[in-house]
Amino acid sequence: MKQLRVGMIGYKFMGKAHSHAYRDIPMFFPDTIHPVMQTVCGRDEEGVAQAAKQFGWNEYVTDWNELVQRNDIDLIDINAPSDMHKEIVLAAAQAGKHLFCEKPLALSLKDSREMLAAAEAAGVKHMVGFNYRFAPAVQLARKLIQEGRLGQIYHFRGWFLQDWIIDPDFPLVWRLQKDIAGSGSHGDLGAHTIDLAHFLLGDIREVIGMSETFVKERPIPGSMSGLSAKGGLHNERGTVTVDDATLFMVRFENGALGSFEATRFAAGHRCTNSFEINGSKGSVKFDFERMNELQVYFTDDTEDVQGFRRILATDPAHAYAEAWWPPGHTIGFEHTFIHETVELLQAIEEDRQPVPNFADGVKCQQVLEAVEVSIAERRWVRTEEL
Amino acid sequence: MKQLRVGMIGYKFMGKAHSHAYRDIPMFFPDTIHPVMQTVCGRDEEGVAQAAKQFGWNEYVTDWNELVQRNDIDLIDINAPSDMHKEIVLAAAQAGKHLFCEKPLALSLKDSREMLAAAEAAGVKHMVGFNYRFAPAVQLARKLIQEGRLGQIYHFRGWFLQDWIIDPDFPLVWRLQKDIAGSGSHGDLGAHTIDLAHFLLGDIREVIGMSETFVKERPIPGSMSGLSAKGGLHNERGTVTVDDATLFMVRFENGALGSFEATRFAAGHRCTNSFEINGSKGSVKFDFERMNELQVYFTDDTEDVQGFRRILATDPAHAYAEAWWPPGHTIGFEHTFIHETVELLQAIEEDRQPVPNFADGVKCQQVLEAVEVSIAERRWVRTEEL
Amino acid sequence: MKQLRVGMIGYKFMGKAHSHAYRDIPMFFPDTIHPVMQTVCGRDEEGVAQAAKQFGWNEYVTDWNELVQRNDIDLIDINAPSDMHKEIVLAAAQAGKHLFCEKPLALSLKDSREMLAAAEAAGVKHMVGFNYRFAPAVQLARKLIQEGRLGQIYHFRGWFLQDWIIDPDFPLVWRLQKDIAGSGSHGDLGAHTIDLAHFLLGDIREVIGMSETFVKERPIPGSMSGLSAKGGLHNERGTVTVDDATLFMVRFENGALGSFEATRFAAGHRCTNSFEINGSKGSVKFDFERMNELQVYFTDDTEDVQGFRRILATDPAHAYAEAWWPPGHTIGFEHTFIHETVELLQAIEEDRQPVPNFADGVKCQQVLEAVEVSIAERRWVRTEEL
Amino acid sequence: MKQLRVGMIGYKFMGKAHSHAYRDIPMFFPDTIHPVMQTVCGRDEEGVAQAAKQFGWNEYVTDWNELVQRNDIDLIDINAPSDMHKEIVLAAAQAGKHLFCEKPLALSLKDSREMLAAAEAAGVKHMVGFNYRFAPAVQLARKLIQEGRLGQIYHFRGWFLQDWIIDPDFPLVWRLQKDIAGSGSHGDLGAHTIDLAHFLLGDIREVIGMSETFVKERPIPGSMSGLSAKGGLHNERGTVTVDDATLFMVRFENGALGSFEATRFAAGHRCTNSFEINGSKGSVKFDFERMNELQVYFTDDTEDVQGFRRILATDPAHAYAEAWWPPGHTIGFEHTFIHETVELLQAIEEDRQPVPNFADGVKCQQVLEAVEVSIAERRWVRTEEL
Repeated sequence: MKQLRVGMIGYKFMGKAHSHAYRDIPMFFPDTIHPVMQTVCGRDEEGVAQAAKQFGWNEYVTDWNELVQRNDIDLIDINAPSDMHKEIVLAAAQAGKHLFCEKPLALSLKDSREMLAAAEAAGVKHMVGFNYRFAPAVQLARKLIQEGRLGQIYHFRGWFLQDWIIDPDFPLVWRLQKDIAGSGSHGDLGAHTIDLAHFLLGDIREVIGMSETFVKERPIPGSMSGLSAKGGLHNERGTVTVDDATLFMVRFENGALGSFEATRFAAGHRCTNSFEINGSKGSVKFDFERMNELQVYFTDDTEDVQGFRRILATDPAHAYAEAWWPPGHTIGFEHTFIHETVELLQAIEEDRQPVPNFADGVKCQQVLEAVEVSIAERRWVRTEEL
Repeated sequence: MKQLRVGMIGYKFMGKAHSHAYRDIPMFFPDTIHPVMQTVCGRDEEGVAQAAKQFGWNEYVTDWNELVQRNDIDLIDINAPSDMHKEIVLAAAQAGKHLFCEKPLALSLKDSREMLAAAEAAGVKHMVGFNYRFAPAVQLARKLIQEGRLGQIYHFRGWFLQDWIIDPDFPLVWRLQKDIAGSGSHGDLGAHTIDLAHFLLGDIREVIGMSETFVKERPIPGSMSGLSAKGGLHNERGTVTVDDATLFMVRFENGALGSFEATRFAAGHRCTNSFEINGSKGSVKFDFERMNELQVYFTDDTEDVQGFRRILATDPAHAYAEAWWPPGHTIGFEHTFIHETVELLQAIEEDRQPVPNFADGVKCQQVLEAVEVSIAERRWVRTEEL
Repeated sequence: MKQLRVGMIGYKFMGKAHSHAYRDIPMFFPDTIHPVMQTVCGRDEEGVAQAAKQFGWNEYVTDWNELVQRNDIDLIDINAPSDMHKEIVLAAAQAGKHLFCEKPLALSLKDSREMLAAAEAAGVKHMVGFNYRFAPAVQLARKLIQEGRLGQIYHFRGWFLQDWIIDPDFPLVWRLQKDIAGSGSHGDLGAHTIDLAHFLLGDIREVIGMSETFVKERPIPGSMSGLSAKGGLHNERGTVTVDDATLFMVRFENGALGSFEATRFAAGHRCTNSFEINGSKGSVKFDFERMNELQVYFTDDTEDVQGFRRILATDPAHAYAEAWWPPGHTIGFEHTFIHETVELLQAIEEDRQPVPNFADGVKCQQVLEAVEVSIAERRWVRTEEL
Repeated sequence: MKQLRVGMIGYKFMGKAHSHAYRDIPMFFPDTIHPVMQTVCGRDEEGVAQAAKQFGWNEYVTDWNELVQRNDIDLIDINAPSDMHKEIVLAAAQAGKHLFCEKPLALSLKDSREMLAAAEAAGVKHMVGFNYRFAPAVQLARKLIQEGRLGQIYHFRGWFLQDWIIDPDFPLVWRLQKDIAGSGSHGDLGAHTIDLAHFLLGDIREVIGMSETFVKERPIPGSMSGLSAKGGLHNERGTVTVDDATLFMVRFENGALGSFEATRFAAGHRCTNSFEINGSKGSVKFDFERMNELQVYFTDDTEDVQGFRRILATDPAHAYAEAWWPPGHTIGFEHTFIHETVELLQAIEEDRQPVPNFADGVKCQQVLEAVEVSIAERRWVRTEEL
């Protein structure tokens, strides 16, 4: 069995999810080339040493520059904060490493294009971490659309609702700082919905958006990591420099109308990553809080029994399901990363680009940025303008 | 247009529902013979006078004996407490009146048989008030089964859950007194589930049950009416003489297995009158709290889109729906009485027995009583024993 | 008991719903002044005669001009197609009649303002038919917001999804013709959502919208009435002159962000009139297809039991519920009209303006039109511009 | 870090789930003693060799007798077919190994008691694999009951519905053969529900049951493994010797009434392992197909906002949740095994018996067998009779 030696940068929320994917793949997808958990990299030596041991990496380093130059690494997996993505990608591409980068690909469209160009110039494989594509229920939605079973698509409605910062005393973590995170809900959550829309319906022609920061100042935390900040909160408050919520409307190239919303202020929604699509022959609905389910409606069902079907996407007919458990035995959030990584490994093995790759990351960034322009200039913006 | 002159006895909860049905029929089912709201009867003159005026009866009387002898009455509609059903039915049948009796038909199987015999001897039409049959979603379930679209039936699960007496200080209303009500949850709620099972699956061969009275003493109320008791609660407590909950299992004549439960102690359930049926080709689920919906599953749906469909039974393809509003515009509890009464009127017009009639009431009583025997004697009881 | 003599114009879908409200009020709201179903008016003599008889009107006329001048009429109830609203309102106001007008109030903001001015000049009571306010679950949402139980409101999401014209061969009924209907989904469905937003959150500051007509030509029907068209469809096709779908985003005066969508092309949605509101202390969700339910979330629930509650708004604590049936016994679409009419009658009795009145109709029209301008000019439009 | 060396027997469905638990624990529960995946055992050398490699076991053997005698093994984990449990347990206990045995513990109550006695005599730790206890939502239900937040419990309703053998041509796998499986749905599915009832409500006083085999003959398969049978189906049919469905009613020691159902013939139910519990202060509902959710109702909620709450048991306040992902990021079936194994490891580390242990297995077997007696003798059976 061929192997692929991985060097991973960043070991918090996403780094943990990626590490687990590498651990599970040989067991559940034994025919895929096996990832070798070679080296994990982080700035905090104590932290990364602990992560290496806990997650099962062979060794750790603290300097990513060194890591990307190593000869015993085939793939660089980037889970560092968003402001570091570009520099790492450029260096790793130049070193000839395959690339696996968490979303959002970059802080700007310009950067993301530079990153795509660098990857293409280097002739390496590149993937961007839009993991939600890989829920079997989402794959089913895609299949139904591709096979024409929903007909011509008229509507896309996508929203990603969370509530983890609704408390005004929640601290000013890095995800609330524009220079590190790029944007707030828009880039963090909205990026996922944009990618799902691209995956399911195709390109977006024009957009117009609006956004708001509801809580404008927050306590400065003593330390933070991943999604949380712990210990020593100062009385001091700092300015939130990203959006708490961003909404926008779009027209797709295929004529469909779309509406998008990303917010961290939707009380009661822990992780409602949801969409609905309506076509001339049917509709689908998805909510990540019930990620094993897809609601499907067909207009040509017999007259007296027309209704949305609740499909549990755990049958052999559903993507990835046979790797797991018998029908009805559900999977969870972490499995999206496993499936995503399987796609990456198989693409590398078959010497083709994985999907979604940096081109998808660029396209997502283009929409994110078009929305930002539309907000700043209060006008419709065509994606091709950017 | 032919008319049918109605004399109604009892004007509380059920009397109100029936009165409203008579009022609505000429408007929504104009081709049905029209009921004339001739006379309403109640013991409390002030109360019945008020009800007559409010509900739209032409006049009121206080003596039901007088009412059933009147020449200007074609149908006697009985909503009095259960212990009065028999006497009224016998007198009204003898007077040649058509009969519409609320459930449970009687306090005993023996009585109910006597009532059926009297109605048959008199050659009148007779109906028993199992209104839940007449929800369009229930009619759809029946249609699917009758047409073989669920295949051979293996399972029936029925439960009627309420919580209105869960407070131990809720007063000792007549529905909690055996001599008036006959039984508690069993006859009040369970009777409906038994009738639905008869309607949907057919006859029951044998039963075994269990029951309990969780709160054995309750405050004696000053006065009571319908479901409630108001004013002057004494400190005095009286004994609850009916069951708070009754469960039983059955084997149907067609070989299916069934389980039944009726309780007034299911916190959070205001009116969960619910069933599920599983067959070799599909399943249906119903919950009266969402009475416009039927969940339907078919085993022969395409492999990747198998799932329970949530059908809103408001389309033209659904029973009674065209009399009401456009698809998606739902109806409520009271409509079951309207549909039920339409069935009665049409049957009278067409000179045939309506369904469900007293024979269905007897059959229900037979199961109720078989369950009671099975509880008392702690053994399986065949319905034919009784 | 004081009475109010009603003259109603138009007797199709809305006329039927209004007629039924008049019939039911004396029975279920006996303490309200009683409506007298005096005269119904329609252009087609045969049709209106039949309606008068079926719905229970004392008489019918075919000329609305005559009706509004009659001395034996106190209230003019207008259910005619939207293009006739203005003329009738002006004449009836001048004749000193109270006014009950279906939505949308008029075909233009200008017209609606003229109608409000006329009603105010005449000193009559006026109501506009935004019936969905009167679902008990919607009333509960309003109550929670008014009492501050949801805190500061951040988000409103409203959508009204139907699918009745998704078939491209569905005929060109009047609701698809701009000169009669004013607009398509926008004015028919969106108007309801706008009114609910006004009712629940208050005024809208600015809007931007988009819309589409997916099926641009449809068969010309032989005859049509209400929502449907029957008989003799020509091969000839005519142009659809209204929107099939309209989406828009808004900023409310209170700072909240809102998104709206109205469409008749959402397969599987018969009547999904739905909204969600998120505030700093909680959230509510409503879907008219389950109109008896409100989903409610509170941020201050105990940590381990935080979640959306499914509340069945049929308890005594809920608006209008005590007029109907015991808890858990649901009501339907038609009940919203009954409650709405009760509000009208009580307001007239108490010599105050009912709510929603023509001022609410004007405000709705202002938003509808601001959206239309924003679509035509592809820019944000402040409602105060109009 | 202390370690525990595991020898596992059987490597199909359950063996895979257990193996994965051992792999994940060091990463997600790093403070727990680490399991060492020492040796896996299976009769088919090719199969077990492949499993050892795929699942990550250090080595494999084909003779379990040899395995249980090994000095480098601390824990014997038994996933072999049910008819082998006893023999292995007795040998392993005598060899002083800790024991982890899949359910049902044995084919008979007598056997299970012998196994418990052997484990106790040997002074080893013993656990039985009732994994569903370890869903965080189930843990929450238990916590609410233990803390008295549901008050006195009146009702338990539990059902485990599947549909994987509804096709009459599904082959005669070992789970359909009494000599290997002991029973059908009853022991396979019902055992889980019984254990949940024990966990949540306590002991069962008496039972009465019924059961049925709907499809009495099935094709004999060429080969079979886990839940499935592949290849060379003969035309020959063999007799199904277990129940397809078993229902029973119980009275708990605490006075609560319970109903149970296990079936493999509930079309549309892939894995509906579900229960509802009603108490004097509230209720809970659970369905394994939505295993991250618990529905909870409290009678003392404010009058106008009483309703079942849908709680996503992924918050820090919920059992095991902090080991995984941020709130709203769900987990799946396999996680119940991880949590279960964590409990086993922690108990061993703390030198106490884990829960559920063989005593719980015996108690479950006692109820299973009491139900069987009640079916055979058509009478109520007290558990203490056995």
